[in-house]
Amino acid sequence: MRQSLTRELTNLIERGRDRQLRLAVTGLSRSGKTAFLTSLVNQLRHAGLEARLDLMPAARAGRLLGARRVSQPDLGVPRFPYDQAMAALDGEPPRWPEPTRGISELRLSIRYRPARRSLLRSETAELNLDLFDYPGEWLLDLPLLGHDYLSWSRSVLAGGGEQRRALLAEWHRAAASLDPAAEADEAKLADVAGLYAHSLQAAREAGFANLQPGRFLLPGDLEGAPVLQFFPLPALEGADEATLAKLPPESVYATLAARFRHYQQHIVRPFYRDHFRRFDRQIVLVDVLGALNAGPERFEDLSQALATLMQSFDYGKRSLLSRLFAPRIDKLAIAATKADHVTPEQHANLTALLEALLAEPLQDLRYANVPVKALSLAAIRATEVREVSQKGGPMPALRGTTLDAEEVLVFPGEVPARLPEAVFWRRQGFDFRAFRPAPREGGALPHIRLDAALDWLIGDKLQ
Amino acid sequence: MRQSLTRELTNLIERGRDRQLRLAVTGLSRSGKTAFLTSLVNQLRHAGLEARLDLMPAARAGRLLGARRVSQPDLGVPRFPYDQAMAALDGEPPRWPEPTRGISELRLSIRYRPARRSLLRSETAELNLDLFDYPGEWLLDLPLLGHDYLSWSRSVLAGGGEQRRALLAEWHRAAASLDPAAEADEAKLADVAGLYAHSLQAAREAGFANLQPGRFLLPGDLEGAPVLQFFPLPALEGADEATLAKLPPESVYATLAARFRHYQQHIVRPFYRDHFRRFDRQIVLVDVLGALNAGPERFEDLSQALATLMQSFDYGKRSLLSRLFAPRIDKLAIAATKADHVTPEQHANLTALLEALLAEPLQDLRYANVPVKALSLAAIRATEVREVSQKGGPMPALRGTTLDAEEVLVFPGEVPARLPEAVFWRRQGFDFRAFRPAPREGGALPHIRLDAALDWLIGDKLQ
Repeated sequence: MRQSLTRELTNLIERGRDRQLRLAVTGLSRSGKTAFLTSLVNQLRHAGLEARLDLMPAARAGRLLGARRVSQPDLGVPRFPYDQAMAALDGEPPRWPEPTRGISELRLSIRYRPARRSLLRSETAELNLDLFDYPGEWLLDLPLLGHDYLSWSRSVLAGGGEQRRALLAEWHRAAASLDPAAEADEAKLADVAGLYAHSLQAAREAGFANLQPGRFLLPGDLEGAPVLQFFPLPALEGADEATLAKLPPESVYATLAARFRHYQQHIVRPFYRDHFRRFDRQIVLVDVLGALNAGPERFEDLSQALATLMQSFDYGKRSLLSRLFAPRIDKLAIAATKADHVTPEQHANLTALLEALLAEPLQDLRYANVPVKALSLAAIRATEVREVSQKGGPMPALRGTTLDAEEVLVFPGEVPARLPEAVFWRRQGFDFRAFRPAPREGGALPHIRLDAALDWLIGDKLQ
Repeated sequence: MRQSLTRELTNLIERGRDRQLRLAVTGLSRSGKTAFLTSLVNQLRHAGLEARLDLMPAARAGRLLGARRVSQPDLGVPRFPYDQAMAALDGEPPRWPEPTRGISELRLSIRYRPARRSLLRSETAELNLDLFDYPGEWLLDLPLLGHDYLSWSRSVLAGGGEQRRALLAEWHRAAASLDPAAEADEAKLADVAGLYAHSLQAAREAGFANLQPGRFLLPGDLEGAPVLQFFPLPALEGADEATLAKLPPESVYATLAARFRHYQQHIVRPFYRDHFRRFDRQIVLVDVLGALNAGPERFEDLSQALATLMQSFDYGKRSLLSRLFAPRIDKLAIAATKADHVTPEQHANLTALLEALLAEPLQDLRYANVPVKALSLAAIRATEVREVSQKGGPMPALRGTTLDAEEVLVFPGEVPARLPEAVFWRRQGFDFRAFRPAPREGGALPHIRLDAALDWLIGDKLQ
């Protein structure tokens, strides 16, 4: 206790001196969190020498001297596996790093020369940058705090398109047979909950993003615990609230409602209380291209998931979050990742599309005076740009190696600058391929606009 | 908060009425915890009908009517996977269930007819039996609470025989090169810690049991967290305590010491505080035969591990445990498992050997007035007893199927009734084979003396 108080105090003082910054990195699964963090650490480690960070004034001016890893403050949080990630990229053939599961952390001590020098010419300063990585799915659980089990159940059952419903069909049949008033059968509830978790996983495999509750996808040590064994009850749709409230604690309804409350109190709240409210800056990664590739229902699903996710950054006075946790994130970046998977002249469209996807939440954030920037980037560039001669003149193309080890030269298509309409989907105008990382040639990892993101997120602290 | 208070109150009242009992099951890895719990649940589920529970008076008198699974009280603890375990036993070929990792829980509601009937003939009573399963390795961490990092480091380095030291050799070389006063290098410490955890795992594979810290073997969600990345420092052996205390927080020594303290406070203590002090009864399972098979160093190692483990049940007034957590276990069973792997006339020796192994701790417990019973049992009997004609007359033998699917008829050897001396080990008088479970024929699982253990642990609550 005393120790953690001392630590809090030290942290406060360090922050006061602008020498400490907690940067959170998130994104829905497969958005490229691990690649982003790996490249970010890599660029800062190489900052003084080989890194190309031209979009970062501190680096361009030669004031960024480098960074080293130091002991992280939270001993109970897994360390971000940077070395393992680099080993994967250096493999033969190069592989994308294993995705992290749950949270991870890494502290860098960045050394720089302040822009305003003091009398001593050799003066350098240090910034402790705490990188904190967590699954974007956990943010999808925030609205759950505003529900009780009954309203949550109804809202989940009302949502979802045709393909989502098809994936839930088996679970739905099993759940529909449950009588809310009947005595709960442990084994039966575990079975139906298993089907629910399984359908969430299948939906994620199929490219859906708007999946709740988030912890069902990465249960960790809670695998098999009753707190992860609730689900919406179809029979509640027409049910009377007062009647339900009178059901005994052993009933199916009361059992599932108790688990829902436990999830709120012991899973969702602790994440916001212990971690989220300590973040200073945040970047949210979005795989826009993947969703574009997957078709209209999944694209719409991503849009909804992002709208939900962005609620965690809306600090309007009336927001649930502000009232509960008083978070302090004062700068936000939203990045469309994997920009190297389309030709460069499409990048502006990619950013525009991201902004269109997030139009509503971005307006809310700007209204709430949270500085936010949308951009497109590639944390680790896996392709090279070539020109191909065509009838109409030279045309840009990408050269890269697919995950199946096939070397290809492709033009993936045009990214729409606005939310795609029916005609875009009908034309199937987009053929996005997944590439594996290119073999490394030493030095810093190649990237696209990671430096721009970095400058937005930490540049002001390197003055 | 209010909810958990209500729960605590309900629990207290239930306990007051003798209608609730929390039975903890533990044992070092491979001692047979999962088989024990599976069979225990299976016997109680079948109690009214096919189960053979003759050593349990309540069952013999026909007063035990059966049991059903009900909702467990701790929503955040994984449910013991009974159905999966039964599915493994019913496989073709039958398999032993997957071992559980970490803690798990299951609540049975046992229905019985009280021995003293009331006026109403049909009166039945119910006992809620909470089964709680946890790794015995966690109890090996208790003495760690009595150490600081320096004394722990020295005690670990002083222990262990030749084979243990050989397994630690690679780690020891790496650790010996670390200067306690040098600035800690995160990556280097992670590497050396990795070697340490790896050597603990190798030691466990090789049949050693006395392994600390216990959580290094089953890290779960803490995989990669600094709190699981400490180890003894060889360079501390001759070091001066006052000098060490003055080292800065970034030093190797201070970094490892901080992690050690975090482990004490956030790993060891919470287990005792949140779980252990709530146990009413406890059974400790011991694989004596496996250790006997593995030779003198491992047998001695098991003996030390058990002595350490038993400290958690010694409630003498001066004990660390009593002072810290006021536990309330009022009855203890120690069982040598896998008794079906030797012929029946050896069972008495097996129990005697277990008592010899635990002579010191058993004396302490009896002195402290904790009722304790030692016995041998087979939770799920995998062999059948046959007689083989020999020159000297008929001899008992075991018929069973080995894990490699070989049907054998063997006499595994004589179990010594006392701690084996050098001559026993030289003769190599023991050849214990691992058998796979026999195909089931429906009904309750076959067992040896599981009913005796059960009667000792819960019989008095079924009066």
